[in-house]
Amino acid sequence: MSEQTMPNWLDQRAFLTPERVALVTEDEILTFSELQKRTKEMASRLSSLGIQKDEHIAVYAKSSVEMVQMIHALSYLGAVGVMLNTRLTIEELVFQVTDSSCAYIIGEDSFKDTLKEIGKQTETPSLSFEELKGYQTVPSSMFEEVIMDAPYTILYTSGTTGSPKGVMLSYSNHWWSAVSSALNLGITEKDQWLAALPLFHVGGLSILMKSVIYGMPVHLHTSFDIEAVHDAIMNKGVTTVSVVSVMLDGLLDRLGSERYPANFRGMLLGGGPAPEVLLHKAAEKSVPVFQTYGMTETASQIVTLSPDYALDKIGSAGKPLFPAQLSIELDGKPTSAHEIGEIVVKGPMVTAGYYRRPETNEDTIQQGWLRTGDLGFKDEDGFLYVVDRRKDLIISGGENIYPAEIEGVLSSLEKVKEVGVVGKEDEKWGSVPVAFIVVREGMALTREDIAAFQKEHLASYKQPKEIYFVNHLPRNATNKLLRRELANWLKQRRNVQ
Amino acid sequence: MSEQTMPNWLDQRAFLTPERVALVTEDEILTFSELQKRTKEMASRLSSLGIQKDEHIAVYAKSSVEMVQMIHALSYLGAVGVMLNTRLTIEELVFQVTDSSCAYIIGEDSFKDTLKEIGKQTETPSLSFEELKGYQTVPSSMFEEVIMDAPYTILYTSGTTGSPKGVMLSYSNHWWSAVSSALNLGITEKDQWLAALPLFHVGGLSILMKSVIYGMPVHLHTSFDIEAVHDAIMNKGVTTVSVVSVMLDGLLDRLGSERYPANFRGMLLGGGPAPEVLLHKAAEKSVPVFQTYGMTETASQIVTLSPDYALDKIGSAGKPLFPAQLSIELDGKPTSAHEIGEIVVKGPMVTAGYYRRPETNEDTIQQGWLRTGDLGFKDEDGFLYVVDRRKDLIISGGENIYPAEIEGVLSSLEKVKEVGVVGKEDEKWGSVPVAFIVVREGMALTREDIAAFQKEHLASYKQPKEIYFVNHLPRNATNKLLRRELANWLKQRRNVQ
Repeated sequence: MSEQTMPNWLDQRAFLTPERVALVTEDEILTFSELQKRTKEMASRLSSLGIQKDEHIAVYAKSSVEMVQMIHALSYLGAVGVMLNTRLTIEELVFQVTDSSCAYIIGEDSFKDTLKEIGKQTETPSLSFEELKGYQTVPSSMFEEVIMDAPYTILYTSGTTGSPKGVMLSYSNHWWSAVSSALNLGITEKDQWLAALPLFHVGGLSILMKSVIYGMPVHLHTSFDIEAVHDAIMNKGVTTVSVVSVMLDGLLDRLGSERYPANFRGMLLGGGPAPEVLLHKAAEKSVPVFQTYGMTETASQIVTLSPDYALDKIGSAGKPLFPAQLSIELDGKPTSAHEIGEIVVKGPMVTAGYYRRPETNEDTIQQGWLRTGDLGFKDEDGFLYVVDRRKDLIISGGENIYPAEIEGVLSSLEKVKEVGVVGKEDEKWGSVPVAFIVVREGMALTREDIAAFQKEHLASYKQPKEIYFVNHLPRNATNKLLRRELANWLKQRRNVQ
Repeated sequence: MSEQTMPNWLDQRAFLTPERVALVTEDEILTFSELQKRTKEMASRLSSLGIQKDEHIAVYAKSSVEMVQMIHALSYLGAVGVMLNTRLTIEELVFQVTDSSCAYIIGEDSFKDTLKEIGKQTETPSLSFEELKGYQTVPSSMFEEVIMDAPYTILYTSGTTGSPKGVMLSYSNHWWSAVSSALNLGITEKDQWLAALPLFHVGGLSILMKSVIYGMPVHLHTSFDIEAVHDAIMNKGVTTVSVVSVMLDGLLDRLGSERYPANFRGMLLGGGPAPEVLLHKAAEKSVPVFQTYGMTETASQIVTLSPDYALDKIGSAGKPLFPAQLSIELDGKPTSAHEIGEIVVKGPMVTAGYYRRPETNEDTIQQGWLRTGDLGFKDEDGFLYVVDRRKDLIISGGENIYPAEIEGVLSSLEKVKEVGVVGKEDEKWGSVPVAFIVVREGMALTREDIAAFQKEHLASYKQPKEIYFVNHLPRNATNKLLRRELANWLKQRRNVQ
């Protein structure tokens, strides 16, 4: 049998529903037909620039219409987008461009200097979207179909362990992710999804894929601004927002005693275990939250709490999406209910592997099953509870301590705005937990308050042995807590009062 | 890469949403969990009967819970269901069972004698659902995953030309059909689909697949009963009904001046070109109709009129579903807009071929494109208008005449209930159209009335040269007009006044 193909997604969408809105930005509203026209123009320029099928193209931009065009344009050329995180240092960018063997680096105009610098250091031609406009739009042959198993994007994992690895995601991975989510959450013609997560992150990118596959408007925000997101939900028809915990918390605070409009469907919550106190806060304000579990390697969510169980199973990340499977393993065997082990997943949205990492791939992906390195358990009904990232595990005197658990407890203290927990080396116990706390504005919290609270809620060995008050926590581009960076702070005594 | 698999659909559905309603029949309401339990029991008995992976099992039953169990049970065993049309003659049944090399024939209790007879004539073990219960439920190994490219069902095409051919549909074909429909029509948690089309026909079977893939209740009716369907829409939460024209017409008459509840989403209309007058009638009563085009070979609809265009493009079957493609070809080349040619389609829901018909397959399916043998055209926006089945084409004095066009015109006569047109051999013109007409009850219509009407609405050569008043039209199990049978009537002067 020949390889599976599909009509080019943007072409097909623009053909099927040309007048539907594709993108809403601060400045303009574009239909799929308009987006297609602009994208084909860009693809044509890229073609005259010399970009070939299967070449890797580094894309370095924040969310914008041009960034969206760029992503779709790659599909017309059969080229692969290496989506660079705009928060990285030059050194990190150079590593990724080199590691993924990019043929070109293309990015937004405001990053012109950085683009040049990376280009120079990697000996790779680089140009900005503005410079690209200097190239002709020549009649060029574009691919009318996409090959489902071909790679579409490469996204580097945040790299909290070892050096970053490029996760290859095929058209098929993105397709199944979008379709599987639709089977769980449903699709209605009123849906409008807000993307405040960057498009170089799978959480944002997956919204773009849903847009073209569902025929759904995406509200594109360049950065997460509580006021703008709140306004988009209240006044602009947004029905769904992808968020991480800290964003959700901010939005709920902004909501105050108001209520979202009836057409609001919910918050898709990803990016790590959510504190229960936050979920209760959302429930109190009648804000539906769909907890999810996923990662770059699974093209975003692979486990999601279905609306049916949003309240009954609060704190759970849910069950696998329809075509996916989930197993919890300890010493190579499936665990029983409530027993913590490694989260292992399988499904058509799971990456075929990391670019040029045959050994890691062999270790990580076996017969379609991806070893996530994350820890969790299933309850008696098969619902997943994510306990922690394995690499963050604190082992103290032989006892396992999961930072997220302690963070969950401490963040239920009203005066605590954010909290991060890491292990600190300890002569006696091997390692002990320590906590970094951001206190809510205008409130006063002492170490004594915390000590008293902990005594009640945490077993002795789980209680942080040191408390640091800080004015922010280190987070990555998607607001995910960087515990590794906390560990650095600890070593360097930086940011610490 | 290994072959693509998915968790067994019923298992996964029962795991994800055990308490959701799967089936509603006259007698009972079953959740997915209950359906799973019963199905596994049946699968276990089938296993102890000796049914093996990849074996073909003829299924001979009308719509019932047991029929549904049977279809899902096959998936646990990796066996292939040959879905027999219960309206066939023994001779036709024997042909299909033999042609598809069935290892067993299993069917409903009321067909016990026929089952025995077919079994005898084909030397194939046969038994009824009741007899199956005599077999033990032994602990047997069932497949936990389905192989997407493996065949799941074989359905014989109605065989209006030549001898019937078994259309092989894989899990993948059924999956993509369900998912593609969802991307077009949307999915909401309120959806409840009514299946009055038989499950041995792809129109009914595809609803069952949607049920388990979406997690959606199906109201299962053993036959089409206007009163029961009307009641299910008005009082039982049914949101969608799959119909053919004659069913829709009856339902609209029954609706009278009433209105369907607000949660009613629409009628999925298949089974051939629909008369415009019927579509207008539906529009007047605010009944949304989704016109579709599809066939057994495409696992049901492959082209559907999106809700966005339901009124603007009345009479059109719409555009291809997202993963599908459509071409109109004449003499091997794509036609221009409004030019009639053969309808050719491509997509992941298209069958890999007919069972043991290598030559037909080679002729019919080329590089994924299926030559349907149907005639149609696209308008300037790419919307499909199905003109007719090629085999029904009447060529009269060198002019092409499409029966469906004439039927559409005549059925706009208020007193006409149904009309069927075929060609009749003619010494002078080669062939001329003749019409069979069912007059609405309590109304009087004369040949003179019709002649006067025709004169106004049809070019001279298109006007039926003979009119036969009949009290019914020959239709197959899914109410599709059998023009071949009309031609027989003509030859034998049967049923003709």
